[in-house]
Amino acid sequence: MTALRVGIAGLGTVGGGVVKLLAEHADLHAARAGRGLRLAAASALEMPRALAPLLKNAVWHGDALDLAASPEVDVVVELIGGEEGIARKVVEKALQSGKSVVTANKALIAHHGNELAKAAEDNGASLLFEAAVAGGVPILKAMREGLAANRFVRVYGILNGTCNYILTEMEQTGRDFDEVLAEAQARGYAEANPSTDVDGFDAAHKLAILTAVAFGCPVNFSAVFVEGIRAVSALDIEFARELGYRIKLLGITGRGKAGIEQRVHPCMVWADTPIAQVSGVLNAVVAEGDFVGQTVFEGAGAGERPTASAVVGDLIDLARGRAAPPFAVPVSELVALPAQSMADRTGAYYVRLIVRDQPGVLADAAEVFAAAGVSIESVLQRGRDPKATVPLILTTHATTEAAMRRVRTALAGLAAVVEEPMLIRIESL
Amino acid sequence: MTALRVGIAGLGTVGGGVVKLLAEHADLHAARAGRGLRLAAASALEMPRALAPLLKNAVWHGDALDLAASPEVDVVVELIGGEEGIARKVVEKALQSGKSVVTANKALIAHHGNELAKAAEDNGASLLFEAAVAGGVPILKAMREGLAANRFVRVYGILNGTCNYILTEMEQTGRDFDEVLAEAQARGYAEANPSTDVDGFDAAHKLAILTAVAFGCPVNFSAVFVEGIRAVSALDIEFARELGYRIKLLGITGRGKAGIEQRVHPCMVWADTPIAQVSGVLNAVVAEGDFVGQTVFEGAGAGERPTASAVVGDLIDLARGRAAPPFAVPVSELVALPAQSMADRTGAYYVRLIVRDQPGVLADAAEVFAAAGVSIESVLQRGRDPKATVPLILTTHATTEAAMRRVRTALAGLAAVVEEPMLIRIESL
Repeated sequence: MTALRVGIAGLGTVGGGVVKLLAEHADLHAARAGRGLRLAAASALEMPRALAPLLKNAVWHGDALDLAASPEVDVVVELIGGEEGIARKVVEKALQSGKSVVTANKALIAHHGNELAKAAEDNGASLLFEAAVAGGVPILKAMREGLAANRFVRVYGILNGTCNYILTEMEQTGRDFDEVLAEAQARGYAEANPSTDVDGFDAAHKLAILTAVAFGCPVNFSAVFVEGIRAVSALDIEFARELGYRIKLLGITGRGKAGIEQRVHPCMVWADTPIAQVSGVLNAVVAEGDFVGQTVFEGAGAGERPTASAVVGDLIDLARGRAAPPFAVPVSELVALPAQSMADRTGAYYVRLIVRDQPGVLADAAEVFAAAGVSIESVLQRGRDPKATVPLILTTHATTEAAMRRVRTALAGLAAVVEEPMLIRIESL
Repeated sequence: MTALRVGIAGLGTVGGGVVKLLAEHADLHAARAGRGLRLAAASALEMPRALAPLLKNAVWHGDALDLAASPEVDVVVELIGGEEGIARKVVEKALQSGKSVVTANKALIAHHGNELAKAAEDNGASLLFEAAVAGGVPILKAMREGLAANRFVRVYGILNGTCNYILTEMEQTGRDFDEVLAEAQARGYAEANPSTDVDGFDAAHKLAILTAVAFGCPVNFSAVFVEGIRAVSALDIEFARELGYRIKLLGITGRGKAGIEQRVHPCMVWADTPIAQVSGVLNAVVAEGDFVGQTVFEGAGAGERPTASAVVGDLIDLARGRAAPPFAVPVSELVALPAQSMADRTGAYYVRLIVRDQPGVLADAAEVFAAAGVSIESVLQRGRDPKATVPLILTTHATTEAAMRRVRTALAGLAAVVEEPMLIRIESL
């Protein structure tokens, strides 16, 4: 059988990893794919020096759009990144040309996955993006195929390695967010502009993709509730430990009473659950199916080599002709499901108040909870200093987000409360 | 597209689960498979009453061999069990008739997987057995496909839920093996004849399959070193904890200096590694690829519903026409690799001696280690009672199994040593 001719658009970290992986394991890939994977073309703003020897048999395109339409390419690997601009155009053009596409671009799929999946189907092409979620961990394949017999109930995970690294460091060193972020930036674990990671958008992109694959619905990124980790303080980490929890940024998707809920935010989870054990830059996804029960998938969520592993895994599937539909079922069979509002989230809450240490504060706070119909489970107070402010921690029994929004507003209005109240949702996983 | 016609041979726990799963999620499966999965025929010694309504449209065969050759069936699901006898004959006959086979039978694949894979290929059929390893966890698919871009370095895991349950219980309650086994039998977590599980053979079957899939070599069950958990005592569990370890029955396969090593035995692993956290009846597999790094897959390793999930996952792949070769590459491309002898295993060891508490014992023991060129890392002694026997625990620095066999023989010959010395291998994972 003739080799699958691969064109790579974008030769940054991941693109370089793919080029190296294809060269290093050509025989292995040919055996597992049943045919060779041949690097036929490449495109980037500039050819990285180190890759030049590996690219000498590939056609070079200064313009990635030429590569996307080029007759010497069967499949286009898009590793440019970004939800709009050239990345989107390259993918659209490749699909319109009847070429299959492999991409690691979570933003692109989260925003335009529905149209792109449709374009792929209309043109008899495939669209695969295993690398877009949890890096090297083949979670999308596991959900589309290995667990395909199940109705999924809930899927959640640690989807952003930068946030998990920061939270792990905060926990292990007792330092505050800003300090740990600065160090992560210095070490290359966080971007100079960290917003995509620490404000939760990267995790939200991945969650929107997981949701579509799990529930067979169109991607609905705008329905994802997103809250990042900037407001998590060393104090919260310390109190979490005292209460038996760890704080993790989780993406959670599941079937709620009012529809599909999709949310990304800091969570308190019992310290002995599998997800709480996942430390540092690792990613992990827990997929709960009605027959299989709880399955856990863990590994490197980013980086040159793990991401290249996922991209080339997709290429091998394409070469074998076994690519599954992007969202597990054909586009025509995707069923739009109602989105459950964040206000309907039910569960327990951790509330951190910074208060002036004066008589009556606890009584006032307790009255706020009572008025909203929220029942308090525990109260922790640390330190006593009538001249200063002190943290006052409360945890609640199960209630709704709507009720807690009323509680937060009312608490913020108390005279003794000197900072915006911090809420962290407690998850039973 | 016409439905895939499924014939099920064997209606025990797993067979019943498959029948129920096919009935319960028929629409979901059709959407994900691109065609229906129709239960066309079934066979068992007796029809279970509870399944009768679900089998009313299936042809009943008193003899499973008739089902295997029956023209109304496209794929045969073998859930009879056992490495020889009727199970083997049914699979052989189905493949010879050009029908694909799905099975959960690890013993069959461990012993006859090579011939069966060849028979499948020769007859244009597929042979899938996701349920044979780690139950509902789609680890074989992950290794054959999702991680196919990698050269595997090492694969290891908790492959037997019964052993992991027993070890977990021993750890949590301080009780000894016999007592916990009896309770596990009473609860249905262990068979009346527990040998297959507690002596390590079930894990060894699974390990032999993982090895073939990971390294693209023929299954070589006879090369697996097997040691069960009967000799692990409450004392060992206690000392393991003191040393910072947990004891797990692991199956380990990897590229050693002298070839592929395959071994199943109790291991001491650091308490904070992911594999040490896996408790109770769960299974977990860690696959290490040269690009992806360490990936972890965890979930239910047995049971009606998880096993059915894996079987039906295979059926969906067959219906979609995307079954991978059983051992990741075609039979003609499997490469027999030399087997590394257990004597070449290198690593640290835990040694438990029961000795008469008299002067000179430690000196004699230390001399044995020195004579074998094995360096001692730590010594623990508990209790002092000149009239009785006491445990003497030693751990070593890295050495070879061959050296430790000499040590064990020499230790057993010391006058003060009153029980067969217990060795547990310490693994760096």
